[in-house]
Amino acid sequence: MTKEQIVKFIEKQKTAFISSVDENGFPVTRAMLAPRKIDGNDLYFSTNTSSKKIQHFLRNPNACVYFYQRGKIKYQGVMIKGTMQVCTDQPTKDEIWRFGDRFIYKKGVTDPDYCVLKFTCKSAEYYCDLKIEDFDF
Amino acid sequence: MTKEQIVKFIEKQKTAFISSVDENGFPVTRAMLAPRKIDGNDLYFSTNTSSKKIQHFLRNPNACVYFYQRGKIKYQGVMIKGTMQVCTDQPTKDEIWRFGDRFIYKKGVTDPDYCVLKFTCKSAEYYCDLKIEDFDF
Repeated sequence: MTKEQIVKFIEKQKTAFISSVDENGFPVTRAMLAPRKIDGNDLYFSTNTSSKKIQHFLRNPNACVYFYQRGKIKYQGVMIKGTMQVCTDQPTKDEIWRFGDRFIYKKGVTDPDYCVLKFTCKSAEYYCDLKIEDFDF
Repeated sequence: MTKEQIVKFIEKQKTAFISSVDENGFPVTRAMLAPRKIDGNDLYFSTNTSSKKIQHFLRNPNACVYFYQRGKIKYQGVMIKGTMQVCTDQPTKDEIWRFGDRFIYKKGVTDPDYCVLKFTCKSAEYYCDLKIEDFDF
């Protein structure tokens, strides 16, 4: 797998599994919608400012983003380690906003409960069945 | 959701997402097969002794196990925080072993590369669309 093939794999997935480290040092994982934008080594997600993960990432930016596909014959997974930045600046919020978001964020694109998570990839592992390949970004 | 309903939800899933914290403080997530045994607050998984997660858990037992189901209408997720114990003792290995494992572990149930992960649940969160419920175990 090349880096380009990993990006293509990510682009096909509907779900991302995002992990943070909480205030007591426990890993915490949750499913999120796939990234809205992939730009070089950066993945952008939209989320609620009031969610617990925002508190985790403000305290500790260490993060993991995992993508997974289980087919009938083989399973593939991509695990990426990196850092997560919480973006509340209006230009980033404007760029990542989509029309349907107004049904979640009643105040629209300036709603303080809408923010953007920017994940910067540092290294990755690609799993295919029992094989593992390592990558640096 | 009661604790019993959470267990029923877990029993229906084919995949578990297991997270550890690595030697540099980064969360690391990977898909695994569903637990082989659920006993009270403990979930048992089979795995390779040589895998990186074993090193993570021996150094830091803090763990998260996440289960996820995305239906056509709603998504549900269960995130459980707890501690992971690496079991290499023969009675536990004997108990969790299944016949098909001999195709992976050539030396059979005493193969040193076969071991058991025992996860003890401490607290959980159940997600259904945008709602969250907390549980203590």
